Amino acid sequence: MNSSVRAADIPRGFSFSSAACGLKNSGLDLGLLVSETPAAAAAMFTTNRVQAAPVLASQVHLKRARHKMRGIIVNSGNANCCTGSLGVAAAATATLKVASELGKLHPSQILVCSTGVIGVPLRVQKILKAIPALVRGRTNRPEAFAQFTRAIMTTDTRPKWAAGTCRIGGRTVRILGCCKGAGMIQPNMATMLGFLATDAAISPSMLTRSLRSAVAGTFNAITVDGDTSTNDTVAILANGQSGARQITSNNAGFRSFCSALEKVCRALALKIVEDGEGAQRIIEIEVRGARSDGAAAQIARTIANSPLVKTAFAGADPNWGRILAAAGRAGVAFDFERVDIKLAGILVCRRGCEHPFSERIAHKRMLAKYVPIVVDLRAGRGKARMWTCDFTKEYVDINASYRT
Amino acid sequence: MNSSVRAADIPRGFSFSSAACGLKNSGLDLGLLVSETPAAAAAMFTTNRVQAAPVLASQVHLKRARHKMRGIIVNSGNANCCTGSLGVAAAATATLKVASELGKLHPSQILVCSTGVIGVPLRVQKILKAIPALVRGRTNRPEAFAQFTRAIMTTDTRPKWAAGTCRIGGRTVRILGCCKGAGMIQPNMATMLGFLATDAAISPSMLTRSLRSAVAGTFNAITVDGDTSTNDTVAILANGQSGARQITSNNAGFRSFCSALEKVCRALALKIVEDGEGAQRIIEIEVRGARSDGAAAQIARTIANSPLVKTAFAGADPNWGRILAAAGRAGVAFDFERVDIKLAGILVCRRGCEHPFSERIAHKRMLAKYVPIVVDLRAGRGKARMWTCDFTKEYVDINASYRT
Repeated sequence: MNSSVRAADIPRGFSFSSAACGLKNSGLDLGLLVSETPAAAAAMFTTNRVQAAPVLASQVHLKRARHKMRGIIVNSGNANCCTGSLGVAAAATATLKVASELGKLHPSQILVCSTGVIGVPLRVQKILKAIPALVRGRTNRPEAFAQFTRAIMTTDTRPKWAAGTCRIGGRTVRILGCCKGAGMIQPNMATMLGFLATDAAISPSMLTRSLRSAVAGTFNAITVDGDTSTNDTVAILANGQSGARQITSNNAGFRSFCSALEKVCRALALKIVEDGEGAQRIIEIEVRGARSDGAAAQIARTIANSPLVKTAFAGADPNWGRILAAAGRAGVAFDFERVDIKLAGILVCRRGCEHPFSERIAHKRMLAKYVPIVVDLRAGRGKARMWTCDFTKEYVDINASYRT
Repeated sequence: MNSSVRAADIPRGFSFSSAACGLKNSGLDLGLLVSETPAAAAAMFTTNRVQAAPVLASQVHLKRARHKMRGIIVNSGNANCCTGSLGVAAAATATLKVASELGKLHPSQILVCSTGVIGVPLRVQKILKAIPALVRGRTNRPEAFAQFTRAIMTTDTRPKWAAGTCRIGGRTVRILGCCKGAGMIQPNMATMLGFLATDAAISPSMLTRSLRSAVAGTFNAITVDGDTSTNDTVAILANGQSGARQITSNNAGFRSFCSALEKVCRALALKIVEDGEGAQRIIEIEVRGARSDGAAAQIARTIANSPLVKTAFAGADPNWGRILAAAGRAGVAFDFERVDIKLAGILVCRRGCEHPFSERIAHKRMLAKYVPIVVDLRAGRGKARMWTCDFTKEYVDINASYRT
């Protein structure tokens, strides 16, 4: 999946297109994803109280079009957030233009996403001017998808995509996804965005269910800095062009689809953490033995966002005390004198006390690209898993630099 | 208060002593604070689920001695946390030794605090050996207090102390405090500790009330990295030696005492933020116009702990979008299109949109040592104030370094 996308990875009936419309100083900054036939759609949006105009517009469109969508227009270089009523008008105008160029569609059949600087008016004229050629130029060629994955990038150092398949009633169904993001939020260059296309035939309600379930353990289980963007969006379109029978209930086909979708989402989510601003390594945090899954998740999230844990990982320091202390302030009751902690496979803390281990060997193992932590509370069956990255001087460099 | 402590600052009837007992590789690492007569006492401890042995011991002692204490023994260089039953025994033995050397006191009349590395057994023999000379050597000279403020330091770059007075019924009452801490937690060198001595005469219950109230807006309103230590303790002893009449109810004398205590606590708390690991500047965050003080505090705390806000301040970047986005994820309902934000006295966001301002001037003002932010939600009368520091590469340097 780290090589380039193949024709076989592209779900049937989808096409892509990109342009450099001038929102960024240079490079692609506008992308279009089209389903050639109406597609079931589902999407999840940021829980931040501050929501960008495109987030508000897309939510309204999904309802109006009853989750039967035709495409997604995305720009990078400007988040269209905190831009007032002009921002709302800009988002609406962009969907209107795409809808009319695609052929008398209703604008609500188009989703709209933006990512980039906050609080600066969106020069939507640049987008509107580029849309006709963008719509005409769309193709289902792998290179078109590859360019789309680049057009949505901001501080990302590389494009992020993943493909998967599953079998439904003897037919192959394709799922193709891409995403952008190198921090939960980087308000200069804001946002995590994820786009998924599949040729599965599935009802909007079952599609929503599968997306929610896939996102919970993947996009919602990663953190770079604990900050949630104003523009976060994950959207999926399912157009049924695979010819597989439609999924309308929780049957074997649905489970197979869910499992494939989750795999693609996990691959994408880990690519975001891997590309986390300044990150050297991925940290997998597994909390077990909690009284409930919710309690485990709360502890995992607190550990994942602790600057002290994350800086210790930057130095590959087996400082388990920071992990236990972060767990202790998560707001969940537990007996720390029962807790076991494994770091990179090495038992370092047993029943809340240090367990003898070689600092040298632990340090060496923690220099890997992917380091697991297991925190076992030994008090129940609740568990959760989260992924984060280490916290380096480069993160500070990237985020302290004066906007220019 | 930045100069050296004077004899007039020392509350009557208190003495101090320090030693280098060998827990640190070099320098003072053991301190003793004694009230020569029984003193009313109050203390507040970490809310972390993981609590160090001295925190547990001190809580028990306060109850047993009915808040009538004689002294505090503190070591730096080892937190005596995650050290199991041996750690509990070590804390108890230290208080026992101090009590017997001071002259047949009950050990519960002594409080005990530790700060330093977590998870490493405390070599309490070193402490026990040093205690006889420590007790004998105690004096009320300013230099003895100055040495005590150094003996409790870990990653602190300078000692932190503050003195105040108030008048109660025509008599002067002295309050003297010192603290250590350069992060809410630095598990190698853990903890915030604060010690206050006063010659006010005050009942334990009123003393507890005044301490709680003073801590709420000071020590509990600062954050360096959002991590809460396993050893955090703030304790006050009041021995009545000023000769002022005893405070037993909420009268004018009590209010005068509370106000002086809060001033001393605020000075100490700001010194911690100022000395925050890698910090260049203090950021004061004021949230106004919330539906309640609690809602305001939640938003202020989220802004204060946002790595993106804190790194922007490291670069003196007037990136108000990060402040608004952090407020938006605080879990408090508000209408972001009513929000005004002032940065270093400059209106930068009005009704949720950018308000035209000079980036150059804002940047210049943000280079100050003390930068205020005001976030006005314009939805009620709730307000809160918090202090944090900027997040620099030096913070990462300090915390990523391998333990040696």
